[in-house]
Amino acid sequence: MKIIFTFQPKEEFVSDLTNSFPGVEFLFYKKINQAESELPDAEVIVTMGEDLTSDHIERSKKCKWIMVTSAGLEKMPFEAIKRRGILVTNARGIHKIPMAEFTIGLMLQHAKQLQSVWEQEKDAVWSRRLPTTELHEASLLILGAGAIGGEIARLANAFQMNVSGVNSTGSPGENFDSMFTLETFRGQLPKADYIVSVLPSTSQTKGILDIDHFEQMKDSAVFINIGRGDLVEESVLLEVMEKKLIQHMYLDVFDQEPLAEHHPFWKTEGITVTPHLSSITKKYMPRALEIFKKNLSTYSNKRDNFINVIDAERGY
Amino acid sequence: MKIIFTFQPKEEFVSDLTNSFPGVEFLFYKKINQAESELPDAEVIVTMGEDLTSDHIERSKKCKWIMVTSAGLEKMPFEAIKRRGILVTNARGIHKIPMAEFTIGLMLQHAKQLQSVWEQEKDAVWSRRLPTTELHEASLLILGAGAIGGEIARLANAFQMNVSGVNSTGSPGENFDSMFTLETFRGQLPKADYIVSVLPSTSQTKGILDIDHFEQMKDSAVFINIGRGDLVEESVLLEVMEKKLIQHMYLDVFDQEPLAEHHPFWKTEGITVTPHLSSITKKYMPRALEIFKKNLSTYSNKRDNFINVIDAERGY
Repeated sequence: MKIIFTFQPKEEFVSDLTNSFPGVEFLFYKKINQAESELPDAEVIVTMGEDLTSDHIERSKKCKWIMVTSAGLEKMPFEAIKRRGILVTNARGIHKIPMAEFTIGLMLQHAKQLQSVWEQEKDAVWSRRLPTTELHEASLLILGAGAIGGEIARLANAFQMNVSGVNSTGSPGENFDSMFTLETFRGQLPKADYIVSVLPSTSQTKGILDIDHFEQMKDSAVFINIGRGDLVEESVLLEVMEKKLIQHMYLDVFDQEPLAEHHPFWKTEGITVTPHLSSITKKYMPRALEIFKKNLSTYSNKRDNFINVIDAERGY
Repeated sequence: MKIIFTFQPKEEFVSDLTNSFPGVEFLFYKKINQAESELPDAEVIVTMGEDLTSDHIERSKKCKWIMVTSAGLEKMPFEAIKRRGILVTNARGIHKIPMAEFTIGLMLQHAKQLQSVWEQEKDAVWSRRLPTTELHEASLLILGAGAIGGEIARLANAFQMNVSGVNSTGSPGENFDSMFTLETFRGQLPKADYIVSVLPSTSQTKGILDIDHFEQMKDSAVFINIGRGDLVEESVLLEVMEKKLIQHMYLDVFDQEPLAEHHPFWKTEGITVTPHLSSITKKYMPRALEIFKKNLSTYSNKRDNFINVIDAERGY
């Protein structure tokens, strides 16, 4: 059995895989175009999820399973995959820990004004006159109360924050004090100190936040987007900060990534840009490959209890 | 009854106090030397805790109660207080929330390399190649497992860290996986990813950390001191970073505060200086005065169920 990787994992992962599955021929390529001659023979394709086209699927005549080592599936050629009946699994679930830690980290560094502290420190300035606050008893509104949003809520609860969420049905969630839908959450905006979005990009979420939403937020509100950049038009975000409708926004996701060097976000006061960092951690690849190895055992043993199976019809 | 404040609270607190206790004459001074003529008449003195001398105590002939709106009591003239049998209460307990949030904030910003992220951001650099880690399953050793250390442990538990502590008896503590004493904690040093000290300054803790302790820590260890600066000699800390024995230290407390502008700590690689910020929060004074008000009701009603009574013999 031939398995093609369209990215090059570190040597430790390569040897772990080849040792764990001696009967398998693993082929590692840095990019999918280097793998093209082998595609017709590959039974399994392992990809980070942004390189496969319907043309690749057509040519992968023997392919039965695609493992995506990320959670983002927007660019997957599901029509072609569906036609061929190829199994798709992904690394869903491994993002919640790093993303929740990143989110709490941003909220705490905001509350403790650490950006200002580091500025002072560079100039050897000892000044304790900083408007530091607490997460304790502050209000958090989480747009997207799934696995990641739920993990953020769990940690926020430990900090004794008031946590409300938004999901597709409005049905209660563990660690959420209240739950709303995209149709009903507006009334929460004037109460929230922190508004965090982990929403994926779907037809229901694209451009859903408008200037009206930000007008309803507190002057002191902090907006954090670690979901998808198309949740809100870039021009809206710039208008929000121009009018100083809220205190600060931390943006980790953008329409176009990497964010262009001359994009106004970099220099706009009140906007902090992070380079889609929220899920990055040294533990990412070990966790993703752990899922892959479990599924590869299942596949090798011709069982069917795969983890994280994607419905090609729905796309998630 | 006359109550002297040796600091000037904000107007909102002044009016709250005068409205809540109409029978009391409150006198507010910016410094104790401005209050000296009134000291002989004062029944109660409210101080931040660093200004009272035994001479002040001698002159405060009517003083029955001193309220200290902080937790640090190192500079209190307890001998004189004891002789006069004056009640002392403090603001113990209000520090744990901001100090625990500050500590977790420092650990998260370290794990997520936010200082580097902000540096990149200033230059509009989109780079995801940062050695970011997680608190999840990392090891934390807390020197000083009292109220503040316990609150840090509680939050660290939410992050699923492995938490060990040091207290005076080694007896188990809630949210601690294991507990040691100052005599037995050495064996934990090679395991800890984060070592946090919240120890007060006492004859048992002064200069207790030596170069040997740091030599036993991981190269990647992070040391955070939010307790007292005299826990470890400054020359030891500089030697630690010169030899790169650990990865980073965050120092919030120092022998001499403010830290002098030309102190080597400011510019030493691997040392981050913060200006004794850990307990600072907008909620500090409201919480301290809440304790004072409760105790003032008790005092006015000639009851004796005071909160946070200090034993003048022990000094805490």
